[in-house]
Amino acid sequence: MAKKIIGVFGGGNVSETMSEYQAAFDIGRGIAKHGCILLTGGLGGVMTAASKGAREEGGTTIGILPGSRDTSPPNPYVDIAIYTGMGEARNVINVKSCNSAIAVGGEYGTLSEIALALKTGCPVVLLDSWSFTRHAAAEESILTADTPDEAVTMAIAAAGN
Amino acid sequence: MAKKIIGVFGGGNVSETMSEYQAAFDIGRGIAKHGCILLTGGLGGVMTAASKGAREEGGTTIGILPGSRDTSPPNPYVDIAIYTGMGEARNVINVKSCNSAIAVGGEYGTLSEIALALKTGCPVVLLDSWSFTRHAAAEESILTADTPDEAVTMAIAAAGN
Amino acid sequence: MAKKIIGVFGGGNVSETMSEYQAAFDIGRGIAKHGCILLTGGLGGVMTAASKGAREEGGTTIGILPGSRDTSPPNPYVDIAIYTGMGEARNVINVKSCNSAIAVGGEYGTLSEIALALKTGCPVVLLDSWSFTRHAAAEESILTADTPDEAVTMAIAAAGN
Amino acid sequence: MAKKIIGVFGGGNVSETMSEYQAAFDIGRGIAKHGCILLTGGLGGVMTAASKGAREEGGTTIGILPGSRDTSPPNPYVDIAIYTGMGEARNVINVKSCNSAIAVGGEYGTLSEIALALKTGCPVVLLDSWSFTRHAAAEESILTADTPDEAVTMAIAAAGN
Repeated sequence: MAKKIIGVFGGGNVSETMSEYQAAFDIGRGIAKHGCILLTGGLGGVMTAASKGAREEGGTTIGILPGSRDTSPPNPYVDIAIYTGMGEARNVINVKSCNSAIAVGGEYGTLSEIALALKTGCPVVLLDSWSFTRHAAAEESILTADTPDEAVTMAIAAAGN
Repeated sequence: MAKKIIGVFGGGNVSETMSEYQAAFDIGRGIAKHGCILLTGGLGGVMTAASKGAREEGGTTIGILPGSRDTSPPNPYVDIAIYTGMGEARNVINVKSCNSAIAVGGEYGTLSEIALALKTGCPVVLLDSWSFTRHAAAEESILTADTPDEAVTMAIAAAGN
Repeated sequence: MAKKIIGVFGGGNVSETMSEYQAAFDIGRGIAKHGCILLTGGLGGVMTAASKGAREEGGTTIGILPGSRDTSPPNPYVDIAIYTGMGEARNVINVKSCNSAIAVGGEYGTLSEIALALKTGCPVVLLDSWSFTRHAAAEESILTADTPDEAVTMAIAAAGN
Repeated sequence: MAKKIIGVFGGGNVSETMSEYQAAFDIGRGIAKHGCILLTGGLGGVMTAASKGAREEGGTTIGILPGSRDTSPPNPYVDIAIYTGMGEARNVINVKSCNSAIAVGGEYGTLSEIALALKTGCPVVLLDSWSFTRHAAAEESILTADTPDEAVTMAIAAAGN
């Protein structure tokens, strides 16, 4: 049986001293510990932190890069680098290729990934991330976690089997 | 000088009797009346309504389709159909190709377009659409309109020159 | 009835003194003269020449750009610029969005467009362009023209109705 | 040091009794034997054969799928499935993500991959595949192999270090 792939989405500019960095690191570690493969956008901040965490547990890490080998090198904790050359359009690939995903904080790029995940039916767990409501919409059932561990547990449960 | 291109984003399943349909129609008409080109995702609902409105004013309409000629025909009010075969990734093209955009209501696909617009610096005006806040974020300066006319005026002003 | 869109593919580095430039200019003019819309990759060389020719006849020109407004400005003869941000992947859009196409000379990028056109069923006419044979393959029925005028006539016939 | 990724491109409709199938199987096995990761388009024919060969040697196999989990399932020998939802545009990702590639036989889709590889500087070795010449072009230095083993050796040498 193929290993489950869990995505981690979040800001590329998060520095090591920010709480999101530590949370992403813990999430990456948790994903690897549960025998899953980590998928990120392959760049810095949350993507680096999660990949570093997964690597530390001996997990496999995939990075879906926006550019080419020359223009957008992956962070050093990416095992398998996929170069798309498609900029933001690579967010669609991230969402489609995960069994489930966790969004940690994040900027507008992360919000687009959350929206695409919800549109395409990829379960996504939010941790200290965006909240959003539609004009006059019924309550959406968004998965929200309070801790990195809880986020991992929820994402793996949502990934199905 | 090239004509400005104004995008209209919104749900594909909106029916003619819904208020979003009429609003999108009025917006399409307003965009054409101001001598701008309309760009949409080329499909139904809000996309059809806006294109119909623009056509009625003699405007030019572009549709960026998710599929191929065979699989995703444009609505009958699209003058120039661009077939991408890239599914949701075509949302990136919509956002990149507009000088500014208006989001009318909308589902998750529209939320992803709003997020991509904000990320890539394409001014976007919201009309009865999503609201969203980032965890612990400073107030974002999102453009919000109360009427279709106001949405058009704001979008054209934001489109620069 | 929507106007037919005819694509012109060819090298981006062709200079004005080369025969391909003049041929592309004549082809662009012919496409416009026949009431069709010209679609190119929006950049230099053959793309500029064809767009300039179509413009001179009062035709409409579309450019499917590989980058963003900031990074890949269209040539001055493009009326409608579509920014994809997807690099070479935009070749797929070029091929899918034409009713038929003409390849003039060209480098490897053009060869990829010819191949994609043949794969996806978009009729393509070659003028002083690539020739190719498959290992042990039966003769392919590739459309080949000897003059710009003949290329236009063949492309419009192939575009169907 | 990250493992090298070697791509194998070829027809999706090649059956088990055809010589291309056996060649692709041998190539996949050779790639794995040399400690490299195999990347294919994830579907049938040559892609299945190469993945099966790599799997038999205990290698890792990546498949870059044109569709979604629901619409384009990978062949059973793909370890890591990346879903793009971008149809033929995924060929660009295949080419960009390899250190080098081998084309075995192939249809027009393969020709587009060969052309994209040559355009973007990805070394590609041809085995019983397309031959092509440019109008009035100087001789191109295309890598051509006579046997699967030779193709693997050439591709790994070309992948650099």
